[in-house]
Amino acid sequence: MFRNFPIIQAPMAGAQDAKLTIAVCRAGAIGSLPAGMLTASQLDTELRAIKQTVGERLYNVNFFAHKQHAITEQQRRAWLALLQPYLDKYGISSADMPTSAGRYPFDEQALALVEQHRPPIVSFHFGLPAKPLLDKVKATGAKIWASATTVAEAVWLENQGVDAIIAQGLEAGGHRGTFLRQDLQEQMGIFALLPNIVAAVQCPVIAAGGISNRAQVLAVKTLGASAAQIGSAFLLAEEANTSAAHRAALANGQTAITNLFSGGLARGIVKPWTQTLGNIHPQALPFPYCGAAIQLLKSKAEAQQQYDFSAFWAGQNARFAQAGAAAEILARLQV
Amino acid sequence: MFRNFPIIQAPMAGAQDAKLTIAVCRAGAIGSLPAGMLTASQLDTELRAIKQTVGERLYNVNFFAHKQHAITEQQRRAWLALLQPYLDKYGISSADMPTSAGRYPFDEQALALVEQHRPPIVSFHFGLPAKPLLDKVKATGAKIWASATTVAEAVWLENQGVDAIIAQGLEAGGHRGTFLRQDLQEQMGIFALLPNIVAAVQCPVIAAGGISNRAQVLAVKTLGASAAQIGSAFLLAEEANTSAAHRAALANGQTAITNLFSGGLARGIVKPWTQTLGNIHPQALPFPYCGAAIQLLKSKAEAQQQYDFSAFWAGQNARFAQAGAAAEILARLQV
Repeated sequence: MFRNFPIIQAPMAGAQDAKLTIAVCRAGAIGSLPAGMLTASQLDTELRAIKQTVGERLYNVNFFAHKQHAITEQQRRAWLALLQPYLDKYGISSADMPTSAGRYPFDEQALALVEQHRPPIVSFHFGLPAKPLLDKVKATGAKIWASATTVAEAVWLENQGVDAIIAQGLEAGGHRGTFLRQDLQEQMGIFALLPNIVAAVQCPVIAAGGISNRAQVLAVKTLGASAAQIGSAFLLAEEANTSAAHRAALANGQTAITNLFSGGLARGIVKPWTQTLGNIHPQALPFPYCGAAIQLLKSKAEAQQQYDFSAFWAGQNARFAQAGAAAEILARLQV
Repeated sequence: MFRNFPIIQAPMAGAQDAKLTIAVCRAGAIGSLPAGMLTASQLDTELRAIKQTVGERLYNVNFFAHKQHAITEQQRRAWLALLQPYLDKYGISSADMPTSAGRYPFDEQALALVEQHRPPIVSFHFGLPAKPLLDKVKATGAKIWASATTVAEAVWLENQGVDAIIAQGLEAGGHRGTFLRQDLQEQMGIFALLPNIVAAVQCPVIAAGGISNRAQVLAVKTLGASAAQIGSAFLLAEEANTSAAHRAALANGQTAITNLFSGGLARGIVKPWTQTLGNIHPQALPFPYCGAAIQLLKSKAEAQQQYDFSAFWAGQNARFAQAGAAAEILARLQV
């Protein structure tokens, strides 16, 4: 199917739309569309655009599959207390807070669009949707992929009948797909996670996390991956919507895992305010509820050319990525 | 100097003596002698044995360079309180406790032996000794290597004039060589640590952590390493002193980083008692002081064929290692 070792452009919610997906597909790799921050109507538009353009080429639509936990008023107050200095700085009151955190799990509406547009690959992050929903996705003929951050998650996913597992190393930028246990100490870098998952499951394993140049693609191929999923390098694609500030930060920024942007653990360029709060803070709301306040702080700050509340997701090898058109980036990565 | 990509047998204090060092050197790689748990007299004997046998072959003597922090009676009591159920189980009282924790930093006595036996490579773990001592080691003509677990540590070591840096990924078994900051969240798997250190320093970088089979050696070579340092695989060498129980555990055990065996962060096969205490516990004494009580518990438990207090150090890819003579293990690893 591929002349080269397959490369998948990682779905990057908030930083790309179908333009990047299409560019990557045209260049000969697997483009991905992140659906987790799209409304049903936006998703319909995006899927339509991709389908009209890429023909028989493989593409992947990625959904979140998180459980929505109810939060108490007490939790909400503790979280806002943590943010108070920043809310004050930008003159934000609780009354301004949006009610939605802007990140949606896969549901009946999304299923209807999958049934309508029939993407060849549907992938999930944060586990899998409930079996009745998943079965209906399978019934469309889509291949099912899902992320694992531990061997236990990989084995669990294989038992649910996924077609491929994305082994997401600790190096990965963006949200960790963790769904069984949230203990970071149990999670591994890709150098150990990949071979250990390959040894534990029968299905193909896609390596993700810290793969930003050709040597790194070769290394995961050597370690037993069936394909490489690449994020940070495609954040630098001309066809991505990555902000200029985010692009600049990727070149030399230190990264850390924080739960302060969304409530979920995610790796990005270190920001002073998350650093001050220790990056991982118990008063953060569960995913995705932190997003409401952060989204508001982000828009107020960006209006003043300040980027403290703009999540600059980045993997630990992002500094090795080089900018260009998606096709140029892909040509440099292929092995 | 080497026909193949150079392989270094990692120094493994407590699990090997000069027998393994010599076997590895004879087979054509760099053998290491761990000196951190040896008395001056034992070290003298070991160095003499190596020198008489390996001729002009390269070998490495590894020393600890930790700072000895004074501990208070209150700290000691809190630590023993944590161990009380286990001390009770084996009928151990405080009066039985040895005064030494059995792990020694590099000192004038060790220097005298280095000056006498002139090993070609002297490596350090937990930072470097004070400059006057280090300068005297350099004056013997020895190449100086040292471990880094972060980019900042690597840059610091290069500024002190080391000849090579051992990039110790989070995957590594045994003690983390960390010396600047103890925050595990800042430490990286070898897939990101290695290329980031290679980009930050001029000197050669030796990859360590999670390298247990030939594919993994090839992968670190691809990622820019000048050599691979391998521990777990050599624990399975016939010439190592690894216990039968430890050898068996390497095949399929889960690992975790714990500070409960010595006070220092170290990765090994998970033990129920460390798991119960969360693996990393604030009441553990600073390195190496936990060792005194643990050493006593270990000997009492082992007398009953129980291995809960025997540290089974292991990297995250140890399950891929295969047993044999050191020369056979090396032949399988060489690329």
